[in-house]
Amino acid sequence: MSKLRVNCFTISLDGYGAGPNQDLQNPLGEGGRDLHQWFVPTKTFRSMLGIGSDGTTGVDDDFARRGAENLGAWILGRNMFAPSRGPWLDDGWRGWWGDSPPYHVPVFVLTHHARPPLEMAGGTTFYFVNGGIEEALERAKQAAGERDVRIGGGADTIRQYLRAGLVDELHVAISPVVLGKGEHLLQGLDLRALGYRVAQHVPTAAATHLVLGR
Amino acid sequence: MSKLRVNCFTISLDGYGAGPNQDLQNPLGEGGRDLHQWFVPTKTFRSMLGIGSDGTTGVDDDFARRGAENLGAWILGRNMFAPSRGPWLDDGWRGWWGDSPPYHVPVFVLTHHARPPLEMAGGTTFYFVNGGIEEALERAKQAAGERDVRIGGGADTIRQYLRAGLVDELHVAISPVVLGKGEHLLQGLDLRALGYRVAQHVPTAAATHLVLGR
Repeated sequence: MSKLRVNCFTISLDGYGAGPNQDLQNPLGEGGRDLHQWFVPTKTFRSMLGIGSDGTTGVDDDFARRGAENLGAWILGRNMFAPSRGPWLDDGWRGWWGDSPPYHVPVFVLTHHARPPLEMAGGTTFYFVNGGIEEALERAKQAAGERDVRIGGGADTIRQYLRAGLVDELHVAISPVVLGKGEHLLQGLDLRALGYRVAQHVPTAAATHLVLGR
Repeated sequence: MSKLRVNCFTISLDGYGAGPNQDLQNPLGEGGRDLHQWFVPTKTFRSMLGIGSDGTTGVDDDFARRGAENLGAWILGRNMFAPSRGPWLDDGWRGWWGDSPPYHVPVFVLTHHARPPLEMAGGTTFYFVNGGIEEALERAKQAAGERDVRIGGGADTIRQYLRAGLVDELHVAISPVVLGKGEHLLQGLDLRALGYRVAQHVPTAAATHLVLGR
């Protein structure tokens, strides 16, 4: 059955999934790049970006690959798609990923502001959903069919789906860095009361991988 | 030179160093016992408690042993010493650890309420300090001489010393559990702004060890 998954979402020791002050220079906020040192060198990530067929293999790459498998649609928060806020301006922004984004399936972007779909090269179409998280999930599941839906982030979007009890599988990687401030993933969320437990724990030299289920 | 250290302080994936509702049955709060599964079976811990000369060796035990080495004094928060709150009653309470506590050096307990020292078997004396964290540290350093002072916890006591920039070394272990609520170690603390960085990262099957310094 189709699942709603979070994969490869990386937090710091102090729990931040992105640094503060996201902008064009810092899509992941200040210091946010440091989080992803386990992910960036993997064979899976490099091949997703089309920047080479080399890269690291092993546990980190296995998690990267699992995250990419069997996906029929994605859900992203507005800030994962764009650095702008508020009503959409005609500014030519088409996402952080160039003409051919690494999704290759429909991507549903949560927003408070209507906008027509944006069809990109390579099979990715961005749909802008302003009816809330349930509507986005319903449309994503419909698009995904038998396959799973993955929430790409950011932290606030994942928190909304967790709080609503809609996430079936949550893979978090903890990186050995401190950010000090930014977007916190779990603050004030009672995962235990929501029924989540750690189902898998695999540490590597670069990160600690934890998979939670209900 | 004598250092102020935190060692073996264990938090959950969601950042809690103890569960909620500490009482006699749950000295570490509800669910808090789950945090320490990397520590309890170690040879070092078992020998500290005098319950056997066996136990696990390896990285987890190495961290447990490092935490016990070269200590001349400890600092504990009131709640680490007793489940009671408010003025001290003549209730016969002498700590959680029986007649011979595993410290074997002077232990300075932070409290708002004066109380005479309590001398225990095996070299441990509890001193009750109601003049604040700086006074406790000063007295502990004096007692420790060349050796280090270790803060045993709880989370709030460590936070106070971190916020004051007084901690030289912070060893945190992350256990693969979620607690949902309880005593949070790092919430609202900007470790990066306080000058802390991850100096060492050693994951094991049972926990992820991170050592921070300034």
